[in-house]
Amino acid sequence: MNEVLKTMSNHRSIRHYLKKEIPNDVLEQIIGAAQWASTSSNVQAYSIIKVKDQARKEKLAELCGNQQHVINCPVFLVFCGDFYRLSLAAKMENTETNFDTVEPLLVATIDAALVAQNVLLAAESCGIGGVFIGGIRNNSKEVSELLQLPDYVYPVFGMCLGYPDMKNIPEQKPRLPLQAILHEEIYQTENQEKYIEEYNEVMKNYYETRSTGKRSETWTENVSKIYQAPRRLHLRGFIESKRFGFK
Amino acid sequence: MNEVLKTMSNHRSIRHYLKKEIPNDVLEQIIGAAQWASTSSNVQAYSIIKVKDQARKEKLAELCGNQQHVINCPVFLVFCGDFYRLSLAAKMENTETNFDTVEPLLVATIDAALVAQNVLLAAESCGIGGVFIGGIRNNSKEVSELLQLPDYVYPVFGMCLGYPDMKNIPEQKPRLPLQAILHEEIYQTENQEKYIEEYNEVMKNYYETRSTGKRSETWTENVSKIYQAPRRLHLRGFIESKRFGFK
Repeated sequence: MNEVLKTMSNHRSIRHYLKKEIPNDVLEQIIGAAQWASTSSNVQAYSIIKVKDQARKEKLAELCGNQQHVINCPVFLVFCGDFYRLSLAAKMENTETNFDTVEPLLVATIDAALVAQNVLLAAESCGIGGVFIGGIRNNSKEVSELLQLPDYVYPVFGMCLGYPDMKNIPEQKPRLPLQAILHEEIYQTENQEKYIEEYNEVMKNYYETRSTGKRSETWTENVSKIYQAPRRLHLRGFIESKRFGFK
Repeated sequence: MNEVLKTMSNHRSIRHYLKKEIPNDVLEQIIGAAQWASTSSNVQAYSIIKVKDQARKEKLAELCGNQQHVINCPVFLVFCGDFYRLSLAAKMENTETNFDTVEPLLVATIDAALVAQNVLLAAESCGIGGVFIGGIRNNSKEVSELLQLPDYVYPVFGMCLGYPDMKNIPEQKPRLPLQAILHEEIYQTENQEKYIEEYNEVMKNYYETRSTGKRSETWTENVSKIYQAPRRLHLRGFIESKRFGFK
């Protein structure tokens, strides 16, 4: 296994950090490498806000649902879908832009995710750990005001980064069997239940034996709760307020 | 620079391949490593369809806007946002699911993008090249029928993979200046035009000197055309047909 595969295969979400700064040149090397991620038609429809200010991290932690690691991490990144830059480009060329359909929302969300996955992996290759924070979408409007996001820019997720506290490294959370997520030629519905049941056993064992808080739960018990009710009902209105449409 | 940063920093989109299969065990090692990508609340809301059948690749190439590399690549992957598996999980637990808001669409799109970026980088670390195919969203309904995607599953993008034809390796397409995409504490609008103008010069020079088709164009000339008219107007209706809502 080469170093890239090894680094990927060693991923776990890190929520406990040493009190140690990430040097600026290290962070810039990480994000500079990550920028080579693919991007739709070279639009590079994303921006990253780097937050180190303690008061701002505290406010963000609260807006993300009181996540302590957002306060404790030395660097908190907010990944945004960003068509502001493209709207400027269009102005500079005296043309109009149209973000009225779902397409640009998908493009910017994908561009932000591609670069973010690179950022986390690059960080991990430098001995830094981190965790994605979907909770940044809990209070999109307030986050947007705090970070002064202009039109056409919305927060997709956050990311805590820091040097891992080695006394608090979690076990790896097992993934679905490869066959469940990889289909041959067409989507294979037949065996999904079987794979899910296999995975239920694996996850039950994981939760029962892990060091960072034991409980007894299968995968289906866990994830079936998440989408019982409509989630983040404010999102559509917020995204529209950033001048994206849903035609 | 470590191997991960080096592999990332060497990325370019590869559209010309040797006539050489990717061994199954290599592909499974790549996707197996990529699966360790982060995922929202462990939902793993994605699936990957591996297409090798020539006739199916030809049909997909046509649906993606006649992209020859979709036919020529030995392996074409279609990355899908997938809540079918979670809807099964809910059925197994006798609970209801609700995908009526924009949130699950973002979650599944992000999950698919995170794993896909890992897949491409893992492939690159094994000497394989590739390119993302956003054109898979040109004809979502037809792609969905061809791949027999069930409810709650939609194509996000495709990816061509193959061993690069070394006679046809493109130069790297330069990225925006780091300062343009990385903001300190709050979104910095002030200098965006300056960075864009710097990048215009870089891109003009890139297009004028590259080996794979010279032309003279700046970044703003190039990207300002892309969103002049509403793009992929069918997407919302298609995604609704897959039982996602936009509340």
